Amino acid sequence: MINGIGVSTGIAIGKAFILQKQANALTGVLLADDSLIDIEVEKFDTAVNKALIEVNILIDSYDEANGNEGLEILEAHIELLSDPQIKEDVTEKISAEKKNVNDAVIEVIAAAVAMFAGMDDEYMQARAADVHDIGRRILSNLNASGKSSAQTYSPDTIIIAEDLSPSDTISLDIKNVAGFATQMGGKTSHAAIVAKSRGIPAIVGCGVSLNKIKNGDLLILDGQTGDILINPDKETIFGYRLKRESWLVETALLKSQKDKPTVTTDGTTIQLFANIANANEMEQAHDFGAEGSGLLRTELLFMNRDSLPTEDQQFEFYKAVALKAKGKPVVIRTLDIGGDKQLPYFNIPAEQNPFLGYRAIRICLDRPELFSSQLRAILRASAFGKLKIMFPMIANVQEIRAAKVILNQAIDELSNTGISFDRAIETGIMIEIPSAAVTADLLAKEVDFFSIGTNDLCQYTLAVDRMNEKISHLYDPYNPGVLRLIDNVIKQAHKNNIEVGMCGELASDPNATLLLMGMGLTEFSMSATSIPHIKNIIINNHMNLAHQIYRQVMAMDNSTLIAAYLKEITT
Amino acid sequence: MINGIGVSTGIAIGKAFILQKQANALTGVLLADDSLIDIEVEKFDTAVNKALIEVNILIDSYDEANGNEGLEILEAHIELLSDPQIKEDVTEKISAEKKNVNDAVIEVIAAAVAMFAGMDDEYMQARAADVHDIGRRILSNLNASGKSSAQTYSPDTIIIAEDLSPSDTISLDIKNVAGFATQMGGKTSHAAIVAKSRGIPAIVGCGVSLNKIKNGDLLILDGQTGDILINPDKETIFGYRLKRESWLVETALLKSQKDKPTVTTDGTTIQLFANIANANEMEQAHDFGAEGSGLLRTELLFMNRDSLPTEDQQFEFYKAVALKAKGKPVVIRTLDIGGDKQLPYFNIPAEQNPFLGYRAIRICLDRPELFSSQLRAILRASAFGKLKIMFPMIANVQEIRAAKVILNQAIDELSNTGISFDRAIETGIMIEIPSAAVTADLLAKEVDFFSIGTNDLCQYTLAVDRMNEKISHLYDPYNPGVLRLIDNVIKQAHKNNIEVGMCGELASDPNATLLLMGMGLTEFSMSATSIPHIKNIIINNHMNLAHQIYRQVMAMDNSTLIAAYLKEITT
Repeated sequence: MINGIGVSTGIAIGKAFILQKQANALTGVLLADDSLIDIEVEKFDTAVNKALIEVNILIDSYDEANGNEGLEILEAHIELLSDPQIKEDVTEKISAEKKNVNDAVIEVIAAAVAMFAGMDDEYMQARAADVHDIGRRILSNLNASGKSSAQTYSPDTIIIAEDLSPSDTISLDIKNVAGFATQMGGKTSHAAIVAKSRGIPAIVGCGVSLNKIKNGDLLILDGQTGDILINPDKETIFGYRLKRESWLVETALLKSQKDKPTVTTDGTTIQLFANIANANEMEQAHDFGAEGSGLLRTELLFMNRDSLPTEDQQFEFYKAVALKAKGKPVVIRTLDIGGDKQLPYFNIPAEQNPFLGYRAIRICLDRPELFSSQLRAILRASAFGKLKIMFPMIANVQEIRAAKVILNQAIDELSNTGISFDRAIETGIMIEIPSAAVTADLLAKEVDFFSIGTNDLCQYTLAVDRMNEKISHLYDPYNPGVLRLIDNVIKQAHKNNIEVGMCGELASDPNATLLLMGMGLTEFSMSATSIPHIKNIIINNHMNLAHQIYRQVMAMDNSTLIAAYLKEITT
Repeated sequence: MINGIGVSTGIAIGKAFILQKQANALTGVLLADDSLIDIEVEKFDTAVNKALIEVNILIDSYDEANGNEGLEILEAHIELLSDPQIKEDVTEKISAEKKNVNDAVIEVIAAAVAMFAGMDDEYMQARAADVHDIGRRILSNLNASGKSSAQTYSPDTIIIAEDLSPSDTISLDIKNVAGFATQMGGKTSHAAIVAKSRGIPAIVGCGVSLNKIKNGDLLILDGQTGDILINPDKETIFGYRLKRESWLVETALLKSQKDKPTVTTDGTTIQLFANIANANEMEQAHDFGAEGSGLLRTELLFMNRDSLPTEDQQFEFYKAVALKAKGKPVVIRTLDIGGDKQLPYFNIPAEQNPFLGYRAIRICLDRPELFSSQLRAILRASAFGKLKIMFPMIANVQEIRAAKVILNQAIDELSNTGISFDRAIETGIMIEIPSAAVTADLLAKEVDFFSIGTNDLCQYTLAVDRMNEKISHLYDPYNPGVLRLIDNVIKQAHKNNIEVGMCGELASDPNATLLLMGMGLTEFSMSATSIPHIKNIIINNHMNLAHQIYRQVMAMDNSTLIAAYLKEITT
């Protein structure tokens, strides 16, 4: 048996097919003279154009029944292939460093992949795979191997691969592929996301132990536990067939509940929102039953560019989201850049501890012209939907007041021009710094709503960088200190009659749902695909149980106990 | 007028003397052939030996009336000059990279200076100046300039310099030098420490504006405000002469209070301890009226070496401290390495956010053999004085329990060998991570005492790296969230009948003394030189005022208000 990270639940039973992939290697060959520069650059242009055609063919032949995720990824590839920065960097390597086009592409793509992979934001990390993918596509066209990427499989095939690129995953022959497992990858890799949206059981991050599997082995893959069984006996197979049946029934049930109200058995209403990054994701979120967005990240609009987006470009972006929300609320988080999310045109000096550094609202208050243009763009877009403004990384009362001074100036400016916008637009803050959680009573008097960002709150409260493998086991949202801070924020928000939601990962942890409801939380925001599962927990439980779990957990003195208790009571 | 950082209070009035210093430059010359290697290495040895003789002469002629600090620095120089690592690195540069000895020394010293300067711990940072200083001494001997470093001045001279090395400061002709000001340096530079211990008014970090001063200018230097007045008018001089008189009277008064008990006017006893790094500092601390040490840092014992110190070496070190404490308590903090304090023989991979990384107790629990040897050494030394054990960077109950398992094993091992030690040795923890402060009630049940580390607690609670210049203004111990956490820790310690002290910088902030006493804090630990001033505040005030300040401050919603109020009420 092999164990990996289960990223898409369900049971697959079928025969192994091992997908081989050739690596692209650096040649180290330098251009003999400058006359070759133009030729190499032209090769690059040709390869990119071929790649664009290929991706467009994939888009045209895309089966919408497979969900929007795949389409969106392909559209992102078109965008990346057209990115002038990549072309510029490759041309620079060819002309200034005399690299051949193959080496230039490998190096430029590797740098871009490393940049994205090193980011904290999971959305940004996932883009590393896209960059890698278009890099492979350009290289394969450069080297004119001309191999077609689509492949058909016999029924009930389980794909085994070192890694699956976004294109690999999208072009998987879904009728016959029962599931897949990869050596690399994490919970937020595109392969994981696509598998989840298509309902294919999938396991990633299995490591080299996956090499034990041979072509044609009979495999059972449990996307819940992350277990892979190789050539199991008949009894085991029979057991898993039953499990598979019940999973299929459950999946159908979850999907059928999309339009059901999210109400507990005692009649308490809970609201489930989606965390999104653009208008497309807003549109998809409806399919999962989202009641709007509790978090629109705006960083994407500022990255992958040579200069700041203009106010008009931002306005169009926010307006598109507002329209796709169809009257449902969208919370727009103002620029959360800095730290590990750098803008090339910003020139923030390297920091020793970027997570404790110059980022988010700290940058915005330091550069009011930048902040102001984003606020004006959001205000203008507020005429087209129910938008709310949220400030990230707030540590104290002074920062909120300073941010509101700039917001009020933007409101005054717009009023003077006669442009219409929502004058009653709500403003809130992320609670993700311990001082903010400890002084929630003071901050509540300054804003209309709170949103608890559990990822950063947990990192700072425990002094643990969860990206640091040496200590990531210490990152622990069930720590009693973290839970008390969350509890305090919810209580203080209620006491001061302001709204409170949660948009961190804890909001989509099924073991924590009832505990959080017991604390009084009624607004959860999470990746859209998690909504059906969390909804199912809510509509099948009574608030009495939630309160009971809350009382029990808050009396425990350590997270080991708490985790075991929550696991036991949830299953 | 020029303004810098006042690091040693007092008023100096006198004539400017500008100290020039020649820089040592890289020559870039490589050795023509390998036969020169031995010659260059021999030149290095000769220069180091000359330097050792010079420093020993300084030690022999040292006037003890100037306090122990200077002597200790000189002894540290002897140790650095004898460091095999420096010799090894220089030899490596000469033999492997064919550098000449001048360039090799410059590069090795620069790397060592950068290593120390980049550390968080202020004690370690200050050592950068020592390394730089011995580097200069070696280079001046190499280049045979043979200049004598001692210089005499006319009475009431104010030294103006780019920077003052430890040796410069120590060899200052104290009878005639009334004060000094430097372009570089910070609050924790050796120049600052020596000036403070000698009672010379001093200002550092003035920047290039100091270039405005010419030799012979009449200067007034205010070590409290950091102001330097150039050629002021007679009226101003008269005003400052009065100020100087009252400062001299006050200084004499503070010194006279050394042996007075630290009791408020209403009879409440407060205990003042010293933060120390070795036995020498323990000895000096008595002169400032310290009632023991609230923090013995043990990192120094592990740094500047090629391998871990043995248990016996550690035992000797702790025993020496215990003996010098003369029966007064000493709290020994177990190894607080990692993050920015690296050991060359440890090989911890670079981290993106070392402050949120693999450090202190996290390393010790991960490497029980290392931890265990330190604990055994402390236990053995506990037979020679009143020692206590303190674990740093505790985030939860589980870590304390794990640390105590290892401690109990060490106790069992020692019991079996029949070695005598204090079986009732107290164990405590640093409260410096927000989760620990939030769950102080839970942690109090596991230990004998708490010590609040305000520097890290403030950094994590506000998500601010105070070493990061871009945002160091956000590092704010008066933030209501930080103050509430400190208050909670003190209250929970009292409720659970365990001791609680504070060893972070806030403990020596005169504006915070009464506020902390109002919270119920009765044990403060700080650099020994700060004790007389804090003691003077305590013995001249009544707890009623402390409680009133506490109530007022805890009702304020932001640190701007709090800082202004504390400043007003204290002056």
